[in-house]
Amino acid sequence: MPSINFINLDKTKAYRKLAEIDPPELKKMLSEERIRNCSIDAGGGLHFNYAALPVDDDILAVLGELAEEQQLILKYEAALQGQRINTGEDRMVLHHLTRGDHGWAVLEDGRDLRSFYTEQLERIAVFSRNIQEGRISGSTGKAFTDVVQIGIGGSDLGPRALYLALEGCCSGSSAGGSESSEPSAKPSAPYLRAHFISNVDPDDAAAVLENLPLESTLFILVSKSGTTQETLTNRQLVRQYLKKHAPEVDPARHMIAVTSQSSPLAGSDAFLESFYIDDYIGGRYSSTSAVGAVILSLCFGYREFAELLRGAHEADILARNPDFMNNAALMDALIGVYLANVLNFRVSAVLPYSQALVRFPAHLQQLDMESNGKQVNRSGEPVSYPTGPVIFGEPGTNGQHSFYQLLHQGTEKVLLQFIGFLRNQRFLDSEMEGYTSRQKLNANLAAQIVAFARGKDDPNGNRNFPGSRPSSLLYGESLTPLSMGALLAHYENKVMFQGFLWNINSFDQEGVQLGKKLANQILSGSADDPLLRTYANLLGV
Amino acid sequence: MPSINFINLDKTKAYRKLAEIDPPELKKMLSEERIRNCSIDAGGGLHFNYAALPVDDDILAVLGELAEEQQLILKYEAALQGQRINTGEDRMVLHHLTRGDHGWAVLEDGRDLRSFYTEQLERIAVFSRNIQEGRISGSTGKAFTDVVQIGIGGSDLGPRALYLALEGCCSGSSAGGSESSEPSAKPSAPYLRAHFISNVDPDDAAAVLENLPLESTLFILVSKSGTTQETLTNRQLVRQYLKKHAPEVDPARHMIAVTSQSSPLAGSDAFLESFYIDDYIGGRYSSTSAVGAVILSLCFGYREFAELLRGAHEADILARNPDFMNNAALMDALIGVYLANVLNFRVSAVLPYSQALVRFPAHLQQLDMESNGKQVNRSGEPVSYPTGPVIFGEPGTNGQHSFYQLLHQGTEKVLLQFIGFLRNQRFLDSEMEGYTSRQKLNANLAAQIVAFARGKDDPNGNRNFPGSRPSSLLYGESLTPLSMGALLAHYENKVMFQGFLWNINSFDQEGVQLGKKLANQILSGSADDPLLRTYANLLGV
Repeated sequence: MPSINFINLDKTKAYRKLAEIDPPELKKMLSEERIRNCSIDAGGGLHFNYAALPVDDDILAVLGELAEEQQLILKYEAALQGQRINTGEDRMVLHHLTRGDHGWAVLEDGRDLRSFYTEQLERIAVFSRNIQEGRISGSTGKAFTDVVQIGIGGSDLGPRALYLALEGCCSGSSAGGSESSEPSAKPSAPYLRAHFISNVDPDDAAAVLENLPLESTLFILVSKSGTTQETLTNRQLVRQYLKKHAPEVDPARHMIAVTSQSSPLAGSDAFLESFYIDDYIGGRYSSTSAVGAVILSLCFGYREFAELLRGAHEADILARNPDFMNNAALMDALIGVYLANVLNFRVSAVLPYSQALVRFPAHLQQLDMESNGKQVNRSGEPVSYPTGPVIFGEPGTNGQHSFYQLLHQGTEKVLLQFIGFLRNQRFLDSEMEGYTSRQKLNANLAAQIVAFARGKDDPNGNRNFPGSRPSSLLYGESLTPLSMGALLAHYENKVMFQGFLWNINSFDQEGVQLGKKLANQILSGSADDPLLRTYANLLGV
Repeated sequence: MPSINFINLDKTKAYRKLAEIDPPELKKMLSEERIRNCSIDAGGGLHFNYAALPVDDDILAVLGELAEEQQLILKYEAALQGQRINTGEDRMVLHHLTRGDHGWAVLEDGRDLRSFYTEQLERIAVFSRNIQEGRISGSTGKAFTDVVQIGIGGSDLGPRALYLALEGCCSGSSAGGSESSEPSAKPSAPYLRAHFISNVDPDDAAAVLENLPLESTLFILVSKSGTTQETLTNRQLVRQYLKKHAPEVDPARHMIAVTSQSSPLAGSDAFLESFYIDDYIGGRYSSTSAVGAVILSLCFGYREFAELLRGAHEADILARNPDFMNNAALMDALIGVYLANVLNFRVSAVLPYSQALVRFPAHLQQLDMESNGKQVNRSGEPVSYPTGPVIFGEPGTNGQHSFYQLLHQGTEKVLLQFIGFLRNQRFLDSEMEGYTSRQKLNANLAAQIVAFARGKDDPNGNRNFPGSRPSSLLYGESLTPLSMGALLAHYENKVMFQGFLWNINSFDQEGVQLGKKLANQILSGSADDPLLRTYANLLGV
């Protein structure tokens, strides 16, 4: 294997070439032929279409050189092989290994880590079936009906986004679900209903707890380190609440843990059961580990979760393709960096035309901004170019009636990422004036891509649309565990490739430490900075 | 009254002066004294603190000149007096009038428009009481327990954000609510539970409808024009659903309308009752009109909604103060434009340390981006400077575990807007290691402001925090209808002042038309653009 070099983006030959090519004008280049041709298999039945992004053959050729020069595939393979590419923390990066084997063993002190992850998944499959079939029940004998994930950041955003994404297509019963080719003929009903407590604001926990059937509720405490302030605080809040409002319930039989084996929570008697993760899977990459597996398997059955893993693994394999013209995540990453660093697009909107993906942009916000919101390279030296963009988004068509005004006619440059599906998840639709709701939804998506790209000249300045506003489109037949898995992995791999391009470490998050430290100084009474004390006073601390 | 002139920001003397002043360095200027002094009453018990924004006396003096030169107060007064400051659409801008009288009548063809709004509110007060007390019930005789708002954009985002904001402090019963000075001693329970259907994606409606008790559910159809595609489509979906799943329910007795008197929906027999709005209140400014009044009064009682109006009116009155040093909305607007146009901050994050404000950033996203995401001035001529910023946000502390990495150490400039409260809404809290959850929440807020402003030098580049990252803080005792009203109006007034500063029309939204038109071409089969047809084909339309 050739040796890996880490060099800054602006030191590559390809980047300097890119900056010298005249950027093509999107409104002139978009064509039927482009729409048909600029499409790459993204796994899980998804396609990545880049027709409405301003890259022509010249630019693509140089982007291919850039991928070579920055050794993107080589670095990805290094991660898969267990090299410690999280250099800042000197750790391996193994989230890909939670969802499939890439053909070799990743060992630590002789222990096969793939086996460790699959062993946890097998335990989760058995545990969730035991809960669903009533072999494990609450301490007063009632079968569990509700499950509450207590976690923050990656222990919350990804699992929550996935739960909402799959709620409409995975029913706990055998009807419906991802195997049926028709939309489910009846309302979906998960085995257990999921809830989430994340914020240290006690109003968050209160709103969730007030409406729960406590005797039949299972809590999952999720904290890799076992020391997350918010999560430990909410654990205590829940325990006190149970004591007061359901003294007959034994908290130890209503709470399980997902944590690392070295955490202070590991193996505690205070939990009915514990499942394990390790330091090689960062929070924002942990949805396909036990962090997502427990709650999703409890709600939808382990079989559905395994489908999600299969979709993610498909995307992971496709992302290994050195031919960037046939590698969706790599192409997405390369064009994104071209737009960010050459054309100065510093903000990106994620716009799923699917209500089920309502919280997926919030997950991507963490995934992308926490991974690539960095100002120093892998050696800790400041970089002199923009890195990760600001990410935001809401589902369409809702966004059309909100912030699209700025996207069409504002002064800011925003790279648009559309997501769409051909069919509904749920059984309900209705025809009106010859078209179903689904067709209206997708007609709007098609119209927006064209409106952004082509614009419209109008002598009335207020009705003039400049056009040439770029967008990508990820689309598939329907949102299922399989396609959701591929969607999740597509973005993880894209973000990883962009980190390699910028020569930053996408796997640590030192930027969250200072705030934590100062908050602890206030709470421990050791804050010697008068500013801290003054603000704390102002806010009643 | 002096005459009103509309001139571009870059043609003002003050703006040119601003660009010549050396910007002060925030990390050096933040002091205890600043934190104590840089605070302005924002109404409803809120304070606007701008200590951590990089403006010194020199800059403030010029910002004051800019406010004069752009006639900000004069233009606001003109709006209050009923001048047609929505020049593009030749309309008055009267959302301030829904929540209070400013001392003179606003007439149209001899009709007093304040009376029109108050008359609607009085009808809503009576109607909501009749529903709550069972005098109006469902068609099978059951008292209403649930209410579903069908609307999109401003008919959805504002009302939904307010419902979530008030759910924890307004109970339908007499206990708790805004009059109590202590957090409610028991779980809140609204008179009716609210739900929202907005997206034309039928999976949105399906997820809501599947779990409703149809015999006791009231639907509110909200569309000013009465022609909104999504809303009419969802109306039909709901009617068909009722016919199939609850044939005993008479849809006409389970649906009310909020629309304008000139809409095709007005006065229809298909509704149990209709409430009216008019063309002088834009969707994103309509939460204090019948659009928000009906659902919030039904859920929490009209008295609580009147408190929200009182808070908004308080903020509206404070915003009339020509002394910008004592006008919170004006100061917020001026500093925001200084940061956007002189210091190049083009993105702003709204960061409420309050879980109840979970959807308030989404409302502000529409309010700000749809109002000020414009590229032409009031005369339709392109402006040569940035206008409205990109807005995004999530509640703290959740955001700390997500995108704060980029805010602390990324390469993008983001203006931070913190919101905080001293007390909880709900009764639940718990002490651990000497501090309550609320204190931990606020310690984090205090710590973040200081961490962003001061940064921290570290020889390890990866642990270095550059600091000088600016933030504002809006804070109050607790989130109640009164403070929520002031919070809502603060941002409305800020956005209006910024529109005046940029010399754009903040009250139209021509940028949403092109996409609508192209979607209709697809759906009517009249799309002659082959790109439209190709994308529509791809997406199965």
